[in-house]
Amino acid sequence: MKKNTGKLKSLFLDNENICMATDLYQLTMVAGYFERGINHKSTFELFVRNLPEKRSYLMAAGLEQAIYYLKNLRFTAEYIKYIKSLPAFKNVSRAFFDYLRDFRFCGNVYAVPEGTIVFANEPIIGVTAPMIEAQIIETYLLSMINYQTLVASKASRVVHAADGRGVIDFGTRRAHGPQAGVLAARACFIGGCVGTSNVLAAKELGITPIGTIAHSWVMAYADEYESFQDFHKVFPDNTILLIDTYDTINGAKLATKIGKKLKGVRLDSGNITLLSKRVRKILDAAGLEHVKITASGDLNEYKISQMLAKGACVDSFGVGTEMVTSKDMPALGGVYKLVEQEEEGRLMPKMKFSKEKETCPSRKQVYRFINKKGLCKKDIIGLVDEEFDANELLSPVMKKGKLVCKIPTVQQIQKTAAENISQLPDRFRDLDCKTAYPVTISKRLRQVRDKAKEGRDF
Amino acid sequence: MKKNTGKLKSLFLDNENICMATDLYQLTMVAGYFERGINHKSTFELFVRNLPEKRSYLMAAGLEQAIYYLKNLRFTAEYIKYIKSLPAFKNVSRAFFDYLRDFRFCGNVYAVPEGTIVFANEPIIGVTAPMIEAQIIETYLLSMINYQTLVASKASRVVHAADGRGVIDFGTRRAHGPQAGVLAARACFIGGCVGTSNVLAAKELGITPIGTIAHSWVMAYADEYESFQDFHKVFPDNTILLIDTYDTINGAKLATKIGKKLKGVRLDSGNITLLSKRVRKILDAAGLEHVKITASGDLNEYKISQMLAKGACVDSFGVGTEMVTSKDMPALGGVYKLVEQEEEGRLMPKMKFSKEKETCPSRKQVYRFINKKGLCKKDIIGLVDEEFDANELLSPVMKKGKLVCKIPTVQQIQKTAAENISQLPDRFRDLDCKTAYPVTISKRLRQVRDKAKEGRDF
Repeated sequence: MKKNTGKLKSLFLDNENICMATDLYQLTMVAGYFERGINHKSTFELFVRNLPEKRSYLMAAGLEQAIYYLKNLRFTAEYIKYIKSLPAFKNVSRAFFDYLRDFRFCGNVYAVPEGTIVFANEPIIGVTAPMIEAQIIETYLLSMINYQTLVASKASRVVHAADGRGVIDFGTRRAHGPQAGVLAARACFIGGCVGTSNVLAAKELGITPIGTIAHSWVMAYADEYESFQDFHKVFPDNTILLIDTYDTINGAKLATKIGKKLKGVRLDSGNITLLSKRVRKILDAAGLEHVKITASGDLNEYKISQMLAKGACVDSFGVGTEMVTSKDMPALGGVYKLVEQEEEGRLMPKMKFSKEKETCPSRKQVYRFINKKGLCKKDIIGLVDEEFDANELLSPVMKKGKLVCKIPTVQQIQKTAAENISQLPDRFRDLDCKTAYPVTISKRLRQVRDKAKEGRDF
Repeated sequence: MKKNTGKLKSLFLDNENICMATDLYQLTMVAGYFERGINHKSTFELFVRNLPEKRSYLMAAGLEQAIYYLKNLRFTAEYIKYIKSLPAFKNVSRAFFDYLRDFRFCGNVYAVPEGTIVFANEPIIGVTAPMIEAQIIETYLLSMINYQTLVASKASRVVHAADGRGVIDFGTRRAHGPQAGVLAARACFIGGCVGTSNVLAAKELGITPIGTIAHSWVMAYADEYESFQDFHKVFPDNTILLIDTYDTINGAKLATKIGKKLKGVRLDSGNITLLSKRVRKILDAAGLEHVKITASGDLNEYKISQMLAKGACVDSFGVGTEMVTSKDMPALGGVYKLVEQEEEGRLMPKMKFSKEKETCPSRKQVYRFINKKGLCKKDIIGLVDEEFDANELLSPVMKKGKLVCKIPTVQQIQKTAAENISQLPDRFRDLDCKTAYPVTISKRLRQVRDKAKEGRDF
């Protein structure tokens, strides 16, 4: 085993090392398949078995980064050498490592567009490829789709609670590492946020970056008002002041002295509902009706909803930790399961029978039925070739490893998400929704499943 | 605003773009400081205000990646151009962007070694530098230290519950994106794990990678035993079989047919306590006493503790989601606060007075008192120049931007962590510990704080 040499490690991912951003068992399994000559055409589907508690829908996200991975996955000499060096691989033939060297993902991928609302057991992505190609990509796909879907779903709830007021992602510092901060900013935007504090995400994705000052700015001055004035001198058109460093009410009064050019104030602590009303009055009394109030500080959808119910005078919400970690439900249990495999030229449905982890076989399509009002009525998970008078959620993304669809911008994805949300009947958007959206499996799919079950006693 | 061009985005971090992996307000603030000529020598400290519920200690981690950032932080032309293009920056002088172009972090850093146990309000890292340098690095430091510390602390609990049995990180697929999987593997190892499924972390850090097969391997065969045999042929010395795909007891019986070369079996579903006992009997009856049983499947410290209390025959635990997301407490609220600043040549203590967010001023040292048995007795947070008969936890890491300490390997850090844990009295390791470890602030620090409070009415 190569030891850490003491050189500082960045632990960044890049095109060279993403081949290693996986679980070891993917590599042992594909070596095994290779050595035993098993490489049938197979279909895997990525889905969530059960909606997390406190979630009445999920919003699919992360597909673009998953495709990036599939397009760029290579095994370079350094990493092949490492795998070869592992004791477990000592009996694996040279031919396998040659295979890895020439590896390209050449499979077919179908998926729901990012921003699509999905429910339990509905495939988010499906992959049809020779077994080895389909297997080796599992871990990366899961980590990307699980996280962005988790956060887009949470952000969508927060945005709903804000009831038309802007929500801004402030979560980078509490995200699970620097890349998670960027991925979260993307997913939050898809979920409906209007901006992010994360500058890299803003630049890369064309999202509006938002932010002015922290408490440290105010504390760097002996005098609070002087700190406000100084910020205003440098940022005359973007003067949003944090007014709670010492005393919020006094801070608000000092802020009004900036005059008409003041753009906004931010409250980050204390009883924000109460304070926002008092601050609003102070601003209005000074003729500053146009000045916006932003609230921040450990907010979530429930707190926002309560604040607004109590008449808080808040124009936008900066939400961090709770949104980017999806704190009340911090992991999405997406899985990636073999559902179909070619055997002697025939496609055979495949399923897993483990207790509580039973899967549904065959490559699937999700049929979404829309009523006359344009609202979702129900979904049927069926076989790919069924015909229903319904929207088909899954569509081709890659064929033989090549992109066959246009990759939308996050702005377009945000629109897709908003359209999906507008089709969802109100009761499913309730923060405490207890009703499950109706999803059933088609008669034909049920028959396939029951037949696969019967046939399992080899 | 530059729009997303439709090109696939990896959202990787690299040496070029880490300068943007920050909150916008860091950039507006430093532009403001620059323009107003404010660049006093300042000290910021990174600490956690309150221990999270269900945590009786924290294990510091992430320093190496924080230092990597400080050593490599540059503002390249592409990113300077982007900042310049933001409407808010239109009044900022060219001199500021020239400053950014030449930016290097040249400050002093002191920190507790990774693996050190810390409590609420104890600085994990301190930075003394001109205000601009000290401020601009906040977000990245927080996201790195918050996450790795969160996971190392959680892993330490899981390892404790496993009571000497190996714990393996299986969490990559549920971590918050691919980089979080790698960071989590590192932090879990520091917390005492014996290995990880994450191949990249294993390679980069010299950790043992662990993994053999998933359910898809077994499902790829018409016959379960044939799938076992085939894996054994390719990995004769590393045959650890997953036996719960169809029926665990039958799976165990089939596994015994591999004979003496069988290395282990893994149970991933069902009542593992019960199943493990029955599987153990089947293995022993077949003369396979040496074969190890690994358990996995949504485990955490509580479940492991209960399983072992009920006599589960498990030799090692694969733990994923709950450990890498620290699921019961998925965010660490570390903060980075200005505590001291030079004013007219004098070091002035600085503090924040916001309700519930009051900070303690001045650059600090943590003094840990060890009793005759070698156990921690109490900590005193004091000023840096106090003299106590106690261990000083914080030591210099960088001076004028240069490393002044040896960077330990993660193997060395794991040892440091184990030593720290061995000094912690048992009651603080209880999973349900309700007693707070005694941490007080020194008399001199209290005097400084009280004086700063009195002096705040400018």
